[in-house]
Amino acid sequence: MIKVVLLGGGNVAHHLARVFINSTPVSLIQVFNRSIKSIEGLRGKVELIDDYNKIKKADIYIICVSDNAIEKVSSKLTIGEALVVHTSGSISMQVLNKHKKYGVFYPLQTFSKDRKISFNEVPIGLETSNKEDYIKLEKLAKAISTHIYSINSKQREQLHIAAVFVNNFVNHLYAIGDDICMKNNINSDILFPLIKETAHKIESMKPFEAQTGPARRGDNIILKKHLKKLTSNQQDIYKLLSNSITKKYGNKL
Amino acid sequence: MIKVVLLGGGNVAHHLARVFINSTPVSLIQVFNRSIKSIEGLRGKVELIDDYNKIKKADIYIICVSDNAIEKVSSKLTIGEALVVHTSGSISMQVLNKHKKYGVFYPLQTFSKDRKISFNEVPIGLETSNKEDYIKLEKLAKAISTHIYSINSKQREQLHIAAVFVNNFVNHLYAIGDDICMKNNINSDILFPLIKETAHKIESMKPFEAQTGPARRGDNIILKKHLKKLTSNQQDIYKLLSNSITKKYGNKL
Repeated sequence: MIKVVLLGGGNVAHHLARVFINSTPVSLIQVFNRSIKSIEGLRGKVELIDDYNKIKKADIYIICVSDNAIEKVSSKLTIGEALVVHTSGSISMQVLNKHKKYGVFYPLQTFSKDRKISFNEVPIGLETSNKEDYIKLEKLAKAISTHIYSINSKQREQLHIAAVFVNNFVNHLYAIGDDICMKNNINSDILFPLIKETAHKIESMKPFEAQTGPARRGDNIILKKHLKKLTSNQQDIYKLLSNSITKKYGNKL
Repeated sequence: MIKVVLLGGGNVAHHLARVFINSTPVSLIQVFNRSIKSIEGLRGKVELIDDYNKIKKADIYIICVSDNAIEKVSSKLTIGEALVVHTSGSISMQVLNKHKKYGVFYPLQTFSKDRKISFNEVPIGLETSNKEDYIKLEKLAKAISTHIYSINSKQREQLHIAAVFVNNFVNHLYAIGDDICMKNNINSDILFPLIKETAHKIESMKPFEAQTGPARRGDNIILKKHLKKLTSNQQDIYKLLSNSITKKYGNKL
């Protein structure tokens, strides 16, 4: 049984709390948050606290707060020989080095409040200050997911950047597609199958090979025609991404 | 039984040919292509021809060729009272107006040679020069898909632009994510669950609401940190899309 204390009250903390509560090898003994109110949804399932002095002994302490609060929360923890980790994609493991044993437990997924996540498929990137702790942390990760990766701080930062491209920016392009449909009285549901197939396709072929469309073909006529129909902001994005595609494939526009 | 002749030998033509061959209400009587070689894969399943004079009588002729060849193929067809349609997202229906009955049959999906598509879920946008033909074309569409939409030429062009954003450009962002992983010795499979969840999430919430990430939060520190780690081309894309997101949500960077 791995005893865990979770610190944080945001989306990721809630998702982690729920999956730990339902995991047999894990005993989530407390969830800490400076505001109890935002973790009320977990009441009855785990002990809720807002006082650092009440934090109990555990094997692993997980700091699951916003990037700029990690160091502050860490500084208030007195945990002796236990392992403390954070869950951030962009903060170095070293921010926790006032503790004896520290590391990172980075679940790479987009978490929303009201959306269930099958945690079993969420990739978790692990890093620890020493090998022995890696085994301990891996045990915890394996209790909730089958996709465990050893990822150092440098890689993790790059991975986070990659995630910004394939999640944040991709979602913004979905929003533009949605805007275009709405403006033209088209039910934007019509885009869902294309969006899903685009995402699933790259499991069986590299995105480099999967690329299609006017920019890939170097079809200047369509590109010019499309540009005329867009807002100024959409035009900028259309031009830049089309140029980036044509450069990648050695086409000339 | 709807008698169909298909003209074309590309990816879309192959996918359509296969689904028509397996559809009971449809009788695919011929596939025409100027090069028989590129449709050899269909031999034994349907009559293959490369001579316009051998084209048989049918109810619907589907011109499924590249945009710039549609008019040429259409000009060589003599079909009398039958309905002729093309499958393009960007070409007006009027390009076929030398015929008495014409329209558009636009399957909105990304088709690759070696990837099976569940055609039942492919949205098909229909347009015809008169109402009577719409019913005929709808019957054909319903034989292979449950997602039928009435889409006029102006809407179709806009839909095609939306598809460029949510398919072509999204795939290019996947390629950048893949590049970043490869450069840093990270197995890019780690991105798949995030990519899939990003795509599936917008079925239950609008992309506008699903937006997360540093630009959405107005987190200037992370943005600057990320920019330093990118190639010049990646920087341009990162900046433009981040600015577009912050503008959309009224944040300032």
